[in-house]
Amino acid sequence: MTTILHGNIIHTPAFGALETIPGGYLVLEDGVIQGIYPRLPEQYAACPVTDYGDGLIMPSFADLHLHAPQYPMLGMGMDLPLLDWLDTYTFRTEARFEDTDYARRVYRQLARDLITSGTTRVAMFSSRHTAATLILMEELEKAGVTGYVGKVNMDRNAGLSQETTEESISETLRWLDACHFDLVKPILTPRFTPSCTDELMAALGKLAQERDLPVQSHLSENTGEIAWVGELHPDCKQYWESYNKYGLWKDRTLMAHCVHSDAREQEAMAKAGVWAVHCAASNVNLCSGTAPVRELLNRGVQVALGSDIAGGDQLAMHKVVVMSIRASKIKQIETGAPFLTVPEAYYLGTVAGQRYFGGGEGFQPGHKLHAIVVDDREMPEPTRELTLSERFERAVYLMDKRCIKAVYSEGIQRV
Amino acid sequence: MTTILHGNIIHTPAFGALETIPGGYLVLEDGVIQGIYPRLPEQYAACPVTDYGDGLIMPSFADLHLHAPQYPMLGMGMDLPLLDWLDTYTFRTEARFEDTDYARRVYRQLARDLITSGTTRVAMFSSRHTAATLILMEELEKAGVTGYVGKVNMDRNAGLSQETTEESISETLRWLDACHFDLVKPILTPRFTPSCTDELMAALGKLAQERDLPVQSHLSENTGEIAWVGELHPDCKQYWESYNKYGLWKDRTLMAHCVHSDAREQEAMAKAGVWAVHCAASNVNLCSGTAPVRELLNRGVQVALGSDIAGGDQLAMHKVVVMSIRASKIKQIETGAPFLTVPEAYYLGTVAGQRYFGGGEGFQPGHKLHAIVVDDREMPEPTRELTLSERFERAVYLMDKRCIKAVYSEGIQRV
Repeated sequence: MTTILHGNIIHTPAFGALETIPGGYLVLEDGVIQGIYPRLPEQYAACPVTDYGDGLIMPSFADLHLHAPQYPMLGMGMDLPLLDWLDTYTFRTEARFEDTDYARRVYRQLARDLITSGTTRVAMFSSRHTAATLILMEELEKAGVTGYVGKVNMDRNAGLSQETTEESISETLRWLDACHFDLVKPILTPRFTPSCTDELMAALGKLAQERDLPVQSHLSENTGEIAWVGELHPDCKQYWESYNKYGLWKDRTLMAHCVHSDAREQEAMAKAGVWAVHCAASNVNLCSGTAPVRELLNRGVQVALGSDIAGGDQLAMHKVVVMSIRASKIKQIETGAPFLTVPEAYYLGTVAGQRYFGGGEGFQPGHKLHAIVVDDREMPEPTRELTLSERFERAVYLMDKRCIKAVYSEGIQRV
Repeated sequence: MTTILHGNIIHTPAFGALETIPGGYLVLEDGVIQGIYPRLPEQYAACPVTDYGDGLIMPSFADLHLHAPQYPMLGMGMDLPLLDWLDTYTFRTEARFEDTDYARRVYRQLARDLITSGTTRVAMFSSRHTAATLILMEELEKAGVTGYVGKVNMDRNAGLSQETTEESISETLRWLDACHFDLVKPILTPRFTPSCTDELMAALGKLAQERDLPVQSHLSENTGEIAWVGELHPDCKQYWESYNKYGLWKDRTLMAHCVHSDAREQEAMAKAGVWAVHCAASNVNLCSGTAPVRELLNRGVQVALGSDIAGGDQLAMHKVVVMSIRASKIKQIETGAPFLTVPEAYYLGTVAGQRYFGGGEGFQPGHKLHAIVVDDREMPEPTRELTLSERFERAVYLMDKRCIKAVYSEGIQRV
């Protein structure tokens, strides 16, 4: 089946690049991009066209780090120190997902809020609960949000949310066996080194290898945590080695934060093919710092963005893209490292994450379409006709949910 | 005429304080607050009640620094260095306000966007154009946005927007004579020291004294600017003295930014009664830095918040409040100065600015009501019943225009 979208096509075909095709045509066969054309090729003349008029067709977002069961506490507890925040809000909130009816309601709202905000791919932490995790995967799949979800493993230092080592392992196996979704796949998710015993880490590493499963966790978010890992693993010179020791530090492992990763840790990431997930809003909210994104990129580390709700307060990834620019400007003031331009940050919040899941660079032929269509007509009237690059930049800064008129995920229109 | 509002009343009666009255009653006589009551006093039993149900009745916002003619360029040029940004966007955009039809359209949209975002008081820069400035004042008045507007004075270093010294003075007089609005008053507005000759500064200082007019300008935004002022006024030890020299540094003078104001400059502010207007988003966007807000407050300087569009990209002041919290967290990481709590930042974005215009502390009896009513029912379903303090914090982080169901300005419902 041929689908043709007509509108202003704007995409980032490489990190830092921006390509604009005014009034262009995006041709799909069964949801797979065939090409982008300034004028419609003869061969498609008879095909129906979905006309977005003066709208902007842009890559959709990928959120590579967020905690689904923290959605109910979004925007709360932000004045508390990290440990109080964890005790008063996080662990209590996550524990509530024992209740599958509650999980269904929250996860249905979350999935709907994600897709209508233009997020079509995620790498997500669930809670420790097998049933709620499967519900989350089902709701995402129904809404058209694709990617990875992980049942969280934590058998120490996790307050109300803790499980025993045996439970953690057996429930993980039960969960993996029950995963049967097309678009949402499992990812192993040791919460972070301090909340997993050596025995659990070893079991997860073994599982990752045996079943060829991807891994996600947290790394070097704040200095207290780093010191704690040092105490727990005196044999490890650096935080990352506590994952490496158990086979969890491998190609495509996602590590959220990396705020305090130094040159050696960054090089270990680049070498192993571990990805850094930059969560700018969360790192500021929790006073963790600003991650060395430019340095990571320069060292060849793959970087994507995460909302990290509910340490982050913004589910909408266009806001996360802007926060990443702001954090990079703070970093520039501090260290002189050049800030992220709008096309660079947009790439990190969209295409970088899409590529993690095997997608193409920008709207690359041969890949299923992941896109949003933005209507910018209600933005302030400019003094002159704007270029598409200007409209792109303005859309990134000013868009909100109401501006997103259509969302395509895996080649299918979902909004 | 008695008006009674029923709902959850939340306000900040002092810097850092938060008072919550669940299901309370706010009683107005001709728009003037009479009192807040947990139960309706007998004497009002027969009066009609506007019932906001479970809504949150909170102080409305005051935006004490923004450039109205930069609204058309909102969210653009953010990757450019300051001088290119000024040349490519700012001066060209402002020059367009020669056209009164264009000015009418943009200012009508701006006034509507301000009031529907809950901003009921402003101190605003217009362009140099007398006619457009009067149109701006008229549109604000019609929409119910109150406060000060200034025709901008700039007779050097202002590119396309420049005027001669004679024009600047005579047009200022013509503008002042034509101001005849109830709710929107004139404020003298030398753009900043580098764009005003000594002759112009002297004339404005004289006018400020003769007609008892308030003054607004910019101070110590970035280090290049500070050095430039030093070259232009070698007799001034610090930037602020270039205003002081001409009688413009006085009680209630508004100074935007103060990013690099040191102890001596801050003390000069406190002593003279000069206000600092903190514009966190703009200061990050333009890589200026983060202002020493806690230090200013500790020294007794009055601080309010500004969106500073279009250096800032966010017109909605609830976003500016959150950006101020984020900037203060960055500052804490840097210097250890305690960050702004949510009630503190909300106070600065609402009540502080209201007090600049003679309003009361929070919903203080004897003052006309400036308030918004927030509906938070579409926010994520929490795990348990939230306290009003929690709902307040969540509303500050998560609200958007659609959540603001009613806006009261000068005691009158405008939205």
